[in-house]
Amino acid sequence: MPDTPDTPDAPGKTECATFAEVRALFVDLPGPDDDAYQAAVARDRELTKPAGSLGRLEEIAFWLAAWQGRQPPRVDRPRVCVFAANHGVAARGVSAYPAEVTAQMVQNFISGGAAVNQLTAMVDGDLRVYEMALEQPTGDFTQGPAMDEDTCARAMAYGMMAVEQGVDLLALGEMGIGNTTSAAAICHALYGGSPEDWTGPGTGVSGSAYDAKVAAVAAGVAANRDFLGDPLHVLRCLGGQELAAIAGAVLAARLAHIPVLLDGYVCCAAAAVLHAIDATFLDHCLIGHVSAEPAHAALAKRLGQRPLLDLGMRLGEASGAALAINLVKAAALCHTGMATFAGAGVAGPA
Amino acid sequence: MPDTPDTPDAPGKTECATFAEVRALFVDLPGPDDDAYQAAVARDRELTKPAGSLGRLEEIAFWLAAWQGRQPPRVDRPRVCVFAANHGVAARGVSAYPAEVTAQMVQNFISGGAAVNQLTAMVDGDLRVYEMALEQPTGDFTQGPAMDEDTCARAMAYGMMAVEQGVDLLALGEMGIGNTTSAAAICHALYGGSPEDWTGPGTGVSGSAYDAKVAAVAAGVAANRDFLGDPLHVLRCLGGQELAAIAGAVLAARLAHIPVLLDGYVCCAAAAVLHAIDATFLDHCLIGHVSAEPAHAALAKRLGQRPLLDLGMRLGEASGAALAINLVKAAALCHTGMATFAGAGVAGPA
Repeated sequence: MPDTPDTPDAPGKTECATFAEVRALFVDLPGPDDDAYQAAVARDRELTKPAGSLGRLEEIAFWLAAWQGRQPPRVDRPRVCVFAANHGVAARGVSAYPAEVTAQMVQNFISGGAAVNQLTAMVDGDLRVYEMALEQPTGDFTQGPAMDEDTCARAMAYGMMAVEQGVDLLALGEMGIGNTTSAAAICHALYGGSPEDWTGPGTGVSGSAYDAKVAAVAAGVAANRDFLGDPLHVLRCLGGQELAAIAGAVLAARLAHIPVLLDGYVCCAAAAVLHAIDATFLDHCLIGHVSAEPAHAALAKRLGQRPLLDLGMRLGEASGAALAINLVKAAALCHTGMATFAGAGVAGPA
Repeated sequence: MPDTPDTPDAPGKTECATFAEVRALFVDLPGPDDDAYQAAVARDRELTKPAGSLGRLEEIAFWLAAWQGRQPPRVDRPRVCVFAANHGVAARGVSAYPAEVTAQMVQNFISGGAAVNQLTAMVDGDLRVYEMALEQPTGDFTQGPAMDEDTCARAMAYGMMAVEQGVDLLALGEMGIGNTTSAAAICHALYGGSPEDWTGPGTGVSGSAYDAKVAAVAAGVAANRDFLGDPLHVLRCLGGQELAAIAGAVLAARLAHIPVLLDGYVCCAAAAVLHAIDATFLDHCLIGHVSAEPAHAALAKRLGQRPLLDLGMRLGEASGAALAINLVKAAALCHTGMATFAGAGVAGPA
């Protein structure tokens, strides 16, 4: 049974209520631990396998050591966080599902019936579901900013609460009818191109609903154009509370030395806001999977990342990130549990 | 601690000692269970997610139901099998490692120090290591057939022993210094092209060692050309005991309604022999990962498959197949554990 904190307006640990307070965090974000990284690389060279033969599992082990700041790295307490919120833009018919489904799915998470419940249980993870004032959707961003600064900063602070010491890997995701429209608007604002470049079927729209979605993305960027030079304002004007929470969780995880797995298009669009501020702000994150939502691959490329899994998933709710925990866990287990050439009496290359 | 049957010459369950006895098995290979498949598809439509949104996890659940012949499918007792053997062609300097490493790695598997030990433990799997007369390498195939028919058929029968009722998913792999040379020769014999098309660095050869490897592949096909019109003879002339065992295990798994995960290049080359006999003989198999060994992607394409993982691994020892068990398990858990729209009170698409 997932834990569902029922205090959506509780202050985050870092108590950010303004963007100035959020920006203050940027100054002291820790970098990778080079000693741990080098120690992991050195151990890998001794393991009973040809050099490089575990491919990305090796790189993941190094990344994990560097960002956990310890050698050997461990994945004993992974946490999966799903942030749920509602969007004013959903009223414009941009989704295949009615907005009520956000709350219904939150109940489904709580009673253990969603995909993410099964995937989190499989990795002995701790699933947290954060319901963010579902009865108060953000403003319709085609008419002006989705959020004021206070709402956005508090939502970021709320996301920071998801990060607690002891967690050693954080998988992030979301639920919110209408939020691929929000993700598309953010990407269009950050990266340009046409609205169609960033707009996909989401839960499954086509035809006139897809056209309405593209029009909403275009209108959102047009209506908020005066604010879009600053990535935090892109998040405020075009994002949603769950996207702001994800951005906050990514920041807090960095401060707490917890590596992060990002999920699909919406989750990565939220993280892209931080990347637009400083490309190094996502160095402690990997993208768990590439979504079938067409623009996700292009977004991953903009973020300089190659997603770990490519299974045609497009469910959201952290499902792809949760599934990728298996790979990170496997990387840590191989790195830690394998014997060395010397220890096992295995000859090295001739 | 993996179980290591110490009777490498024990007869397989189906007691094949000749190719005629192997061929007799082809007649009654069961097909997919269409009722189970349809029932899985029907249940999937009711699960609390947009149709298709779990991508390949959905297809895997259907495949699992069809080949286990039950709905819902389950992955409670996965088994990982590593077959180990030595190759006469190793004496031609085709590997970066000496032939003694095969036996040393078998000891490493037994003492739990290899990558596959960690990966199997992670999925609560049962690891079996089959040591196949390591002191008696096959003949150097550049000089004539690697095996006589009796040796090859008995090795296939030995592989069949790995398959036992109760196992619900079988991951297959191998260990054998020199065996990517054998795999390259098999692919060159089955699919033509140039020897270079099918020859890669294996454990890490380059320069003159790579040239020796290419020359061995060319010489192997030339020396055995009179026998290569029949895929079983391709296996006998250019394969090794561990490759023959894998082919036997694939057949026995089909007879026992156990779906199979294939590992990398060598494992798939062994399975390709069956595919060349009849393309449907691998329908109960998925390729766990695409190896960094360059020809594996081309081989997977010949087999009509898209491997599940793409992580640049090239270790062999069933490591990629064992890692992919996580995905198959995840597919089964989502399919079985998720709530339905009706059960969870979640609205369907508008």
